[in-house]
Amino acid sequence: MNAAFRTTARDPHSAARAGLLETPHGTVATPAFMPVASQGTVKGLTHAQVESLGADIILLNSYHLFLRPGVEDIEALGGLHRFISWPKPILTDSGGFQIYSLSSLVRVTDEGVRFASHLDGTKILLRPEDAVDLQVRMGTDILMCLDHFPAYPCSEETMKESVRLTGLWARRSMAAFARHDTRQQLWGISQGGIYPDLRTRSIEGLMEQDFAGYAYGGLGIGEPKTRLFETLELGHGLLPADRPRYLMGMGYIEDIVEAVARGVDFFDCVLPTRNARNGTLFTSRGRVAIKNRKYARDGGPLDEACACYTCRNFSRAYLRHLTERDEITAAVLNTVHNLHFYLDIFRKIRHSIASDSFDSLKKSLISNVLLKEEMP
Amino acid sequence: MNAAFRTTARDPHSAARAGLLETPHGTVATPAFMPVASQGTVKGLTHAQVESLGADIILLNSYHLFLRPGVEDIEALGGLHRFISWPKPILTDSGGFQIYSLSSLVRVTDEGVRFASHLDGTKILLRPEDAVDLQVRMGTDILMCLDHFPAYPCSEETMKESVRLTGLWARRSMAAFARHDTRQQLWGISQGGIYPDLRTRSIEGLMEQDFAGYAYGGLGIGEPKTRLFETLELGHGLLPADRPRYLMGMGYIEDIVEAVARGVDFFDCVLPTRNARNGTLFTSRGRVAIKNRKYARDGGPLDEACACYTCRNFSRAYLRHLTERDEITAAVLNTVHNLHFYLDIFRKIRHSIASDSFDSLKKSLISNVLLKEEMP
Repeated sequence: MNAAFRTTARDPHSAARAGLLETPHGTVATPAFMPVASQGTVKGLTHAQVESLGADIILLNSYHLFLRPGVEDIEALGGLHRFISWPKPILTDSGGFQIYSLSSLVRVTDEGVRFASHLDGTKILLRPEDAVDLQVRMGTDILMCLDHFPAYPCSEETMKESVRLTGLWARRSMAAFARHDTRQQLWGISQGGIYPDLRTRSIEGLMEQDFAGYAYGGLGIGEPKTRLFETLELGHGLLPADRPRYLMGMGYIEDIVEAVARGVDFFDCVLPTRNARNGTLFTSRGRVAIKNRKYARDGGPLDEACACYTCRNFSRAYLRHLTERDEITAAVLNTVHNLHFYLDIFRKIRHSIASDSFDSLKKSLISNVLLKEEMP
Repeated sequence: MNAAFRTTARDPHSAARAGLLETPHGTVATPAFMPVASQGTVKGLTHAQVESLGADIILLNSYHLFLRPGVEDIEALGGLHRFISWPKPILTDSGGFQIYSLSSLVRVTDEGVRFASHLDGTKILLRPEDAVDLQVRMGTDILMCLDHFPAYPCSEETMKESVRLTGLWARRSMAAFARHDTRQQLWGISQGGIYPDLRTRSIEGLMEQDFAGYAYGGLGIGEPKTRLFETLELGHGLLPADRPRYLMGMGYIEDIVEAVARGVDFFDCVLPTRNARNGTLFTSRGRVAIKNRKYARDGGPLDEACACYTCRNFSRAYLRHLTERDEITAAVLNTVHNLHFYLDIFRKIRHSIASDSFDSLKKSLISNVLLKEEMP
């Protein structure tokens, strides 16, 4: 059993569960949404705002931090929490995703991944052991294993090789992690796309290493949603109940609630924050493209049902004006709202699981967020 | 006498005075610094942050607001205060400065100024009466007259024509303003550069109109500082003691304290906010160029002596990192600090005038802020 994670409530009608994860920097209530703070800040917000919006944990990108300011500087400054002055839990990814998507000259061997920095072309070799050591040194609460995944779609043969590599690296990651005496946690990442046998093989391989948590990697990248959900059901049948599960990078509320119903506990996505900066705002009546001319004289709040600072104080007309003018404050106010919207839904999800109302919440969320445009 | 403004303390050793200005949206303690909120927001900050930093009043640019969203929309939304949800006093400029500096095809006649919008080239005629009417309709607390000024340096002959036009327009502005029954205030702007006789003529002409406040225009644009200060001394000898005086656009602390010593009550400048976004930060030990490599491992606060949110919570290394990465949050945290630095100095100036210590504060501020780089 894993003393760090315990389930506090289970939905009787689905695999949804509420729980608490203990970390060296505090407790995270699950299901949890992790706002993305790539470089050490949720873009546009102060930590005080992120905390007051109710985030228990944030996600930082190792790839960016490894390159700049670099782990030596972060270590010299007392670790990641002190460096960025965020006192609560931090999860860092392994860097893999950004290597594959941002850098160039990527060459993958059993040893690890060689790539050229997207900043200055510096050639770097990142082995699974390096990814663990660097994250340990930064002092993050939850470390992720370096994994490998091909672009979607890919052949079963290519996926098979990814699963093999990811499994090999996971074993070496755990061996490297075991050399450290730390309360940090290392989580494994399964691959295999939507191929049931490959995903099964990947998950079972990880489970031999007894990770503190298990992530689903390589999903939500274009595959049919039904296949994605089947993969989560498969995972639910395999994964130990006493370990947190993390669906990486999936951000649409309609997908999140389906994943929660299939036993997923952790989520992260840039969707609420990036959309906020672009002027796409989530509301209880559907999405609002705030730059639309029709809001120019709309003196009402963005979302009547919302209690965030932005909705309590400002009109759609003002938000439209600031967003149209590319004012920095537009990014701030829009991000406050969108992040509140997400974190508030997660609060409701946790509460609904504890009070046997998850299914009706799920239905109402799906019917709401599927409104791609605001209802008249 | 002007019931709206009263002096509460006078420095016995200079012309410095502390006072209170009543407006329809509250009281402003003077000497006052007005953060610039060109389009209706102090760039990067929420109104809650601006208020908690202690700003009594903000300055908005009419030129920008006239063009977008336009006065019709602002009026339809209940006026400027409701539109931007800022409950405290607002001063708007007349639009003149931005017309002369941003727009093209500027043609000035006695009637007013014709120009082409810098956005789409639309031809616009702005008469002094229009500037007043538009500001009245927006509902700003303090309106400024449309003035005219030539670039520095210019001949006495050119300046003479500017003074004539500015005086003509001021009379017409007051006539237009007098048609409105409002508690708003119209302030006049004197021109004349550093030519004593022209500045005198301009100020005396304005005084015939009995404006609620008097601004110095066309200063701080490259003329020798001694001539600037002599001009303020000249104005002090002429202007009624019971009216607020406003030195437009001057932002260096060393100039501000000299101007306060010569009887100036109001200031505005983009310096603290624009510099913040560029990474130039003001501290009690001199200026800090936060992007400098030397701060990469500096775990101390930006300014040990500062009580702002940024200095209480974050290190120079973190601010450097965010500023280098062009994170929006860097603009936020840096602006919080620089604006706190300015507003705190104004609090100290007001207190020092009331407690007979303005002269020593002035000396210490000048010796500090003249440090162009941080002391080792």
